[in-house]
Amino acid sequence: MAEHKTDRDERIIMAHGGGGEMTRRLLTERILPKLANPLLSALDDGAVLPPMAGRVCMTTDAYVVQPLEFPGGDIGRLAVCGTVNDLAVMGAVPKGLSLALVIEEGLSIALLERIIDSVASSAAEAGVPIVTGDTKVVQRQSGDGLTITTAGIGTLADEITIRPEQIAAGDAVIVTGRIAEHGLAVMSAREGLAFETELLSDVAPLTELLQSLLAEVEVRFLRDPTRGGLAGVLADLTEQTALTLEVQEPDVPLSAIARHTADLLGLDPLTVANEGKCVAVVPAADAERALKLCRGHPLGRHAAVIGRFVAASPPLVELITHAGGRRIVQRPYGEELPRIC
Amino acid sequence: MAEHKTDRDERIIMAHGGGGEMTRRLLTERILPKLANPLLSALDDGAVLPPMAGRVCMTTDAYVVQPLEFPGGDIGRLAVCGTVNDLAVMGAVPKGLSLALVIEEGLSIALLERIIDSVASSAAEAGVPIVTGDTKVVQRQSGDGLTITTAGIGTLADEITIRPEQIAAGDAVIVTGRIAEHGLAVMSAREGLAFETELLSDVAPLTELLQSLLAEVEVRFLRDPTRGGLAGVLADLTEQTALTLEVQEPDVPLSAIARHTADLLGLDPLTVANEGKCVAVVPAADAERALKLCRGHPLGRHAAVIGRFVAASPPLVELITHAGGRRIVQRPYGEELPRIC
Repeated sequence: MAEHKTDRDERIIMAHGGGGEMTRRLLTERILPKLANPLLSALDDGAVLPPMAGRVCMTTDAYVVQPLEFPGGDIGRLAVCGTVNDLAVMGAVPKGLSLALVIEEGLSIALLERIIDSVASSAAEAGVPIVTGDTKVVQRQSGDGLTITTAGIGTLADEITIRPEQIAAGDAVIVTGRIAEHGLAVMSAREGLAFETELLSDVAPLTELLQSLLAEVEVRFLRDPTRGGLAGVLADLTEQTALTLEVQEPDVPLSAIARHTADLLGLDPLTVANEGKCVAVVPAADAERALKLCRGHPLGRHAAVIGRFVAASPPLVELITHAGGRRIVQRPYGEELPRIC
Repeated sequence: MAEHKTDRDERIIMAHGGGGEMTRRLLTERILPKLANPLLSALDDGAVLPPMAGRVCMTTDAYVVQPLEFPGGDIGRLAVCGTVNDLAVMGAVPKGLSLALVIEEGLSIALLERIIDSVASSAAEAGVPIVTGDTKVVQRQSGDGLTITTAGIGTLADEITIRPEQIAAGDAVIVTGRIAEHGLAVMSAREGLAFETELLSDVAPLTELLQSLLAEVEVRFLRDPTRGGLAGVLADLTEQTALTLEVQEPDVPLSAIARHTADLLGLDPLTVANEGKCVAVVPAADAERALKLCRGHPLGRHAAVIGRFVAASPPLVELITHAGGRRIVQRPYGEELPRIC
């Protein structure tokens, strides 16, 4: 028991980032065994992947979320799923992720290990190996602890085109599930709010769901509504298409607990970040089929058609409210939820 | 003049990272125009690259160097060249870089713009586009200001194999230029040391030099001696090959100013980081040809054969000193030069 306690109290020190023996031990004993796969070689500068068929996609994101662990996920799962989903909404299948850790001196090694375990399980769930990485240690600052930057490469089949220019009047807008759950879960954890029913982040990898959609129906556009929320994506779309988008508020999937939490925090759920949801635009004729496909997948069981594009000027997002009124939905101006990703 | 002064005093605020209008303006007005290329699309989640012939390589590094600007370079040039060089020593040609910025609130926007200019010019020099990126802002901490994480993908021709297992007794070890200049330049800047002749970081992209070597001679192994310096790479090699390496100290390229600076700082130049140099192992028969090729390139004009592998046990790095003595060179244990990369 004494030894166990000592282990739990271990902290990162500057020498863990020095590139010497302490670094080697941190990597080979604590990090690499959790991420092991044939492409990740312990001490090489990079990875050699097999030849790739089709176009190659690349994306990157830096994650600075606080707290590092939140209901339903943590920064490790977020970093893997965020980059996988950026590839997924391009229509790509992920082939390799890089993982760069910038660790603050003083971070609990037990916490770091939990986060690396989460990286590993999330990458396995997404079907993509962590192929290369880097670890740096910086001096103790505000106790923020850890930032993770992932980059991802994937392959994009030649026949897939996903562009807002393909959207036409009459097209249907689908959301693959209940909105606002990631941002609200993180904000609740940060504010120390407690709820009878816990609200969980929706952070999850979307590749399988979106590839099944792409294989079966005509998909004109995909985007994951992260920072800026659903409102941000819809506002972008009206700008890019010069079409108006009519959204039926009662059709937007939103759980009672999320609605209640947003009320408590004074937030509009439409502007709150999601990390396991997608907006898909399909021709009206394909909408029912697309909806059925989504609902057949565990990550899409609350999917709904929330609105349609119409040829009306000026191009706006019009929310037709529960009460039957109309409200213009705008892109959030600044940051309503800092550091939720 | 008044307006110019105001511009120079502009600082990053949290809203620059919020994903709203301030973020859009920072990106579209200050960052993206400097990095413009056909693959970098302003507001997409990722980039689509052309199909790639051969194997695909991937690497990543996080950069936390202090100060952000140092004699001969800055964190932007370091991030580009470091990732390009990780690909270059694998034998790969870079095809795309990602650029993730984590900016601390309070960073001077003029400084940020200089660093992005440096990213752009270094990427152009290396012949690789910045294809995708991300920007996050974190709260003011110790004033460190900025970390940059780059990932790179490149292609590796089928006929290239670079592995320590290929090294045999008799093989020659070449260093492509004067050592220790990056780490000493950064440390000097940090310590406020002044010199009559300024010592500059050697940070530079090595792809062209190394591709010309790979095309013309048999190359058994390549590695850039960054953290841990030349000593670290050589110690790794004796461990991986189970051969002894005899190094002639008088043959190790080292400028007088670097030697003097290392003395002042109490550092062994063999353990100090380089960012524009490479260790190349070639068969003895190819050594002269390889040396001539290096010296014909601006980044290799001080190249030298510094030693040879011999079949002696136990496998050690033996430095034959100026005085004719023998000294064992060991891998540095911890971090002698924190945050030089």
